[in-house]
Order: sequence, then structure tokens, then C-alpha cells
Amino acid sequence: MKDRQISKAVIRRLPRYRRYLKELQKKGIEKISSKDLSNLIGYTASQIRQDLNNFGGFGQQGYGYSVSNLHEQIGAILGLDKTYKMVIVGYGRLGQAIASYISNNEPMFHIVGIFDVKQIIQDAEFKDAQIMTCGSLHDFVRNENVDIAVITVPTEKAQIVADTVADAGVKGIWNLTAVDLDLPEGIAVENVHMSDSLHALVYYMHDGEQ
Amino acid sequence: MKDRQISKAVIRRLPRYRRYLKELQKKGIEKISSKDLSNLIGYTASQIRQDLNNFGGFGQQGYGYSVSNLHEQIGAILGLDKTYKMVIVGYGRLGQAIASYISNNEPMFHIVGIFDVKQIIQDAEFKDAQIMTCGSLHDFVRNENVDIAVITVPTEKAQIVADTVADAGVKGIWNLTAVDLDLPEGIAVENVHMSDSLHALVYYMHDGEQ
Repeated sequence: MKDRQISKAVIRRLPRYRRYLKELQKKGIEKISSKDLSNLIGYTASQIRQDLNNFGGFGQQGYGYSVSNLHEQIGAILGLDKTYKMVIVGYGRLGQAIASYISNNEPMFHIVGIFDVKQIIQDAEFKDAQIMTCGSLHDFVRNENVDIAVITVPTEKAQIVADTVADAGVKGIWNLTAVDLDLPEGIAVENVHMSDSLHALVYYMHDGEQ
Repeated sequence: MKDRQISKAVIRRLPRYRRYLKELQKKGIEKISSKDLSNLIGYTASQIRQDLNNFGGFGQQGYGYSVSNLHEQIGAILGLDKTYKMVIVGYGRLGQAIASYISNNEPMFHIVGIFDVKQIIQDAEFKDAQIMTCGSLHDFVRNENVDIAVITVPTEKAQIVADTVADAGVKGIWNLTAVDLDLPEGIAVENVHMSDSLHALVYYMHDGEQ
């Protein structure tokens, strides 16, 4: 199923396909044509067929796509048919928002530990996850075989946290800080640079005016 | 300064340039060559020169770029030399995180109002912004000439909030919900689909393993 030839652009579209398919499933819709999927998602029908052909295509001529099957297959391609152990490092408002979002919406991700610098939150808990201070981060990640670290610490602490979890063996880092991280090969990183998005918005607001 | 020929890809890189230049400024660095900027940001030096040439190029042969000048010029291109009135709709943990981030890090954006469905928070305040219930959203946006609405409400409420603020005259919507919004032409929208980013991360974690 995994094929290194698949372009980065296709990969980035898959979560979006899956998101729409999940909505269709919720509405009880069982099958959909590439044309209807196109109207919904905003990619052309030909783009959609081409994207899904990358994975052997799951459509049947004259029938369209089975919504649940396509949802499941795309999930499997992404790796969302497995579960992942996750720690959240930085438990300010953003860290709390993420913890709450994940535990309510992302059943494949198990938050096993939460870390912050503040002593005050020591011994507190979020669902099944203990909230600990950062001193125990390295040992915890190593001992628990944590897969993913979510980083929501202040900018100046982001790199050292990333170094710590990388050294302790995480496979992926979800970086919600405003900085780009420098990491060894073999560790996947995804950045959500929120302020970059806000600044691009401002450009498009002006661009549209003129 | 604004030129419709500038590609979307260049525009999306500008906030990133600006972010790095701001860091350099903080460190007291006054000038930088395209080569050093390349090492820092990770784009090629030729890409950087080409990007910045789109805007008339601010570098001098044999000197490089003035960090403060380039930072300021890119800010002006994006429209960050002006101020914007902003409302935040949805004041759960994510809305609170955003309000706090904006007021601490983004001086060009003035949060003038915060909206939530909960009566309980009525009459509360965040800095200079009153916290109100959603019933007054339309009138407030119209009367205060609000530029940007940040939407952090639950998925099923996102479109109606977007319709409300669009009708009331906002120029831009910063959408932090998991859904894509359907909006009239002329309103700029930027999405931060966090779960799409998390799902792409999972793919790259597996991709790297094999």
C-alpha cells in the first residue's frame, strides 16, 4: 500500500478526503460519484479519480465510491487503522484545547502523559493521563514507547523539548509552536504555524480589495 | 506594491520569511546574505532571491539584506503595517488560547469583541474586549466595522457563524474549525485544519519507517 512515488501533494489531500467522507457517513450517505465528491470538496472530478487511482482506486464504474469503504481505505493508507501513544508537552490553554480535542475526536490517539514546567499541576490528571513536570519527560517517553509528542511550549523552549523527545525515541512530532525545529532524519515533523496562516489571511483581504 | 501576478506559493512563504527576520532582529543581527538566509530558512538562496525580486528585491550586491528593512517591507506587503479589528467567536479553550496568543504576540490585531453561546460568560471581559453572547454578533460586527472574525465554535455551528459575520461585513475569516466554509466571493478565508496536519504526520511516520 505504501509507495514512495506518491507525491506530497496527494498525501496532503488525503486527510481532507477522509474528513469529508466521515461527514457523509454521519449523514448516512452510502455511495458517492467522483462528480458529487468534486462538488463537495472542490477538487475536480478528474483530480479525485487520479488521486484515488494512486492507491488502486476504490471506485466501481457506474456505481461510484462506497463512502465507508473509501473512508476506511484512506484511513489505512494514512495509518489511522492503528493506535498511537501521545504525550502533550506544554499544558497552557493551547495544550488543554488540543488534549480536549484529541480525546473527544481522535480515538486512534491515546494521550498517555502531559508535561508542563509548572510544579503546581503536578499530580493532576487528564482522563487517563498523568500530568507531570518536564524533568521526567525523557524517561517517560522512553519507558512508555511514546509514538508522538505534541509540542505547545513557549517558542524559546521548543527546540530543547524536541531534542529531548527525539532522543527518547518518538517517531513523530506535532509542532504547534511558532518556530521550525531542527531534528535528526527519520523523525517526522508536522508544523501548525498559526500566525503564518493569519498573516496570509491579511494579504488575501487586501488582495481581494484591489 | 500589490501585484496579482505573485503566485500563491510565494505569498505563503512570506510570513515564514518575516518570522525568521523577526528572530534575527531580536538577536540584534542587522544584515544577512541570501546564502545565510537560505541556511536558516531552508529554501535555496536562488529561491530566496527570486521570491524577493517579486517585490523589487531589497538586497544590495555584496551587502545582502538589511534585516529590519526586509522585515518591514514584507510586513507592508502582507498588510501588517496596518491594524485590524478582530472578533473571536467561540470562547472555549482554543478561543482562549488564540485570544491570549494574539494579544501577546500580534500587536496589529485588536480583539474588540469575544462571543460565545454561554450566558454564564456574559459581561465578562478579556483585556479591552467585552465577552458577549452570539445573539449580538451581527450588530456588533456591523457597528464596529470589524475586519476579521476568528471562528473556533463547534463544527456544526461554523457555517452559520460564518454566514452571520459575512453578512455583517467582515473582510476575512480565520477558520479554526474542522470544516470548510462556503462563503461569498470577496471574503478571504484561511483555514487551520489541525486534524489534517496530525493525520499527515501519521502518514510520514510510517513512510519514514519503510
